[in-house]
Amino acid sequence: MNILQAVAQTLARVREKKPLVHHVTNYVTATDCANIALAAGASPVMAGEMAEVEDMASLASALVINIGTLTVQSVEAMIAAGKKAVELGIPVVFDPVGAGATRLRTRAAERIIREVRPSVIRGNMSEIKMLAGLDVRIKGVDSAADESDSAAVARDLAQRLDCVVAITGKRDIVAQGNNICRIDNGHVLLSAVTGTGCMTSTLAGCCCGALKDPFVGTAAGIAFMGIAGEIAQQSLKPGEGIGTFRVRLFDALWNMTPEIVLRYGKIS
Amino acid sequence: MNILQAVAQTLARVREKKPLVHHVTNYVTATDCANIALAAGASPVMAGEMAEVEDMASLASALVINIGTLTVQSVEAMIAAGKKAVELGIPVVFDPVGAGATRLRTRAAERIIREVRPSVIRGNMSEIKMLAGLDVRIKGVDSAADESDSAAVARDLAQRLDCVVAITGKRDIVAQGNNICRIDNGHVLLSAVTGTGCMTSTLAGCCCGALKDPFVGTAAGIAFMGIAGEIAQQSLKPGEGIGTFRVRLFDALWNMTPEIVLRYGKIS
Amino acid sequence: MNILQAVAQTLARVREKKPLVHHVTNYVTATDCANIALAAGASPVMAGEMAEVEDMASLASALVINIGTLTVQSVEAMIAAGKKAVELGIPVVFDPVGAGATRLRTRAAERIIREVRPSVIRGNMSEIKMLAGLDVRIKGVDSAADESDSAAVARDLAQRLDCVVAITGKRDIVAQGNNICRIDNGHVLLSAVTGTGCMTSTLAGCCCGALKDPFVGTAAGIAFMGIAGEIAQQSLKPGEGIGTFRVRLFDALWNMTPEIVLRYGKIS
Repeated sequence: MNILQAVAQTLARVREKKPLVHHVTNYVTATDCANIALAAGASPVMAGEMAEVEDMASLASALVINIGTLTVQSVEAMIAAGKKAVELGIPVVFDPVGAGATRLRTRAAERIIREVRPSVIRGNMSEIKMLAGLDVRIKGVDSAADESDSAAVARDLAQRLDCVVAITGKRDIVAQGNNICRIDNGHVLLSAVTGTGCMTSTLAGCCCGALKDPFVGTAAGIAFMGIAGEIAQQSLKPGEGIGTFRVRLFDALWNMTPEIVLRYGKIS
Repeated sequence: MNILQAVAQTLARVREKKPLVHHVTNYVTATDCANIALAAGASPVMAGEMAEVEDMASLASALVINIGTLTVQSVEAMIAAGKKAVELGIPVVFDPVGAGATRLRTRAAERIIREVRPSVIRGNMSEIKMLAGLDVRIKGVDSAADESDSAAVARDLAQRLDCVVAITGKRDIVAQGNNICRIDNGHVLLSAVTGTGCMTSTLAGCCCGALKDPFVGTAAGIAFMGIAGEIAQQSLKPGEGIGTFRVRLFDALWNMTPEIVLRYGKIS
Repeated sequence: MNILQAVAQTLARVREKKPLVHHVTNYVTATDCANIALAAGASPVMAGEMAEVEDMASLASALVINIGTLTVQSVEAMIAAGKKAVELGIPVVFDPVGAGATRLRTRAAERIIREVRPSVIRGNMSEIKMLAGLDVRIKGVDSAADESDSAAVARDLAQRLDCVVAITGKRDIVAQGNNICRIDNGHVLLSAVTGTGCMTSTLAGCCCGALKDPFVGTAAGIAFMGIAGEIAQQSLKPGEGIGTFRVRLFDALWNMTPEIVLRYGKIS
């Protein structure tokens, strides 16, 4: 079975298992992340209070940690949830939103990686370069970095941290050990909607919660979002724009089948 | 006037009175709750800071308390707001999201019920069974409980707590004293959109804020959501899915009239 | 160049400069504010933690402060972010959501104005009258005030505080010094969607971040929202309602051009 076939089958696995995916995440994209997880067939729960994150993580099939609107307190809850999940063998997907933009974000991302040891790190080129200790220009939470060396950067960090590292951008890269997967799905409109990065991490969490292999799970989550973006864009009629595109993303994921993934998927 | 007629008239009352509905609620579904309240003709306000919840509750026609993303601090604010509302005779709708999933949620729900004594409790079967002290399987914030005995469970808890208890699921039940109302509206797609439970509690709050009778108000809020779900589903064209369905829910409630409620309502 | 031409050119400037607009804002409308900023061509970032707001504000082209779901802590972060922005010459747009509804909101608004000295204050008639020390009836976060004297109220407060003051309502007013601008765009449906006020402040922030003139920038942000509302309303077909209207708002802003602004704009 090649990687495209494995990715396509992952969709069926998510729908079959309906994994509970615990999120400690931001308030800007939480609704969208919950709805994309439901559209994929998973069962999302958002819970970030220190007094319950360990209990909630214990019930979950996967944990997604996202620092989009982090607070000093929420970072502690992220670490507690993450440690509990790792202790119980539950995959942890980490989205280092805006790492590099402020010292708080950079330090929080570094601490989470060091103390939790997530299974998957997914970010844009700026965020991943920052975590890799490379020189980088940051502009808020959007990437401004050159993407030409993304495969090398991802592989290097993945090997150093012994986890899956994914860089999403024009071309998406997923790296683990010596494995590299390239995904050429997606559409530029995805970068004009807030939360498409967060939703990609959520989908990676849903997929990692449904099967044992975080490399395939991460590739699947990224591919599903990219394909949904293409289908949503193709459906747009004159006069429609980013508002309709955003609605159609959820439609596309809801109607997605393994066959559609096989037909649209550009994964190698 | 039968219950269906009373429910239909409630919609006209909400549009006429435009009740201010104060929410102490979660950040995942707050936008959707605000928009569904506006679509129903009410005026929502979200305010959860301890230092203002009593002031805000004092201005309101109804209070909705929702523990979807509770914190240790927010529970105190919920209780303060709830006590103030009860003191002033303002109806309080309580949505015990995820009660049973974590100890924090279960204890918070129990405290809110004991200290506030809400007028209405609306949850899914898992949540209500947990509050009733019955054995139950919980999976995150979604119900996994058998629903066959929902009428007996709702009536028992309603009598014990001397309030309205509503269980929403395939069939919805509203109980108060010896009164039981069954609502068979709704569509399975509603469970594939985050926040439809929260929005149902919001609508119950809007209706309870517009008339004196919390039994009818709760039934009305539940019926409006169910009917909106049916209308939204019927409007879907091939290729559309959960994203479009969610948009149409708001359209359906916005365009709902007492006549539509009479035509679609399956309430007994 | 008249004010309408200046407003139309502002849209081109936003798309060209893609200003980073830092928000310290509420969790109810944050998603919508982020998406409307993206639809306008700006780059939004939401960050409200005290430990990072100064760093984030330093990167931004404009700062938007919104007290929609303020907390005692968040007000301190708003002030810290605002002071930093003013120190660096970055325009600050302040949206005093619900000022007058609770003592906390009124006091927070007064403190922010006194300690930050924002470049722009945008609110509804109730909020601005309250800040101007005038008698006013408040109902939650929606205005219940008479709008007939809005120009005089706006001009008086603008002169007293030496900033731009905007009152949005049926007719929108922007005042600075002796300058007054009236905008007659918009549609009543805008008041049936949560967050249209917040989004207007966000758009004012985007425009102020893209050009030197906060008077024109504020007028532009308000006009863009009003025109988007008109276009969205005109696109509605029978059976569609507030859900679809809300989606089309984002479409309309995404597809807006300086030519459309010139054609639709009712600015004097």
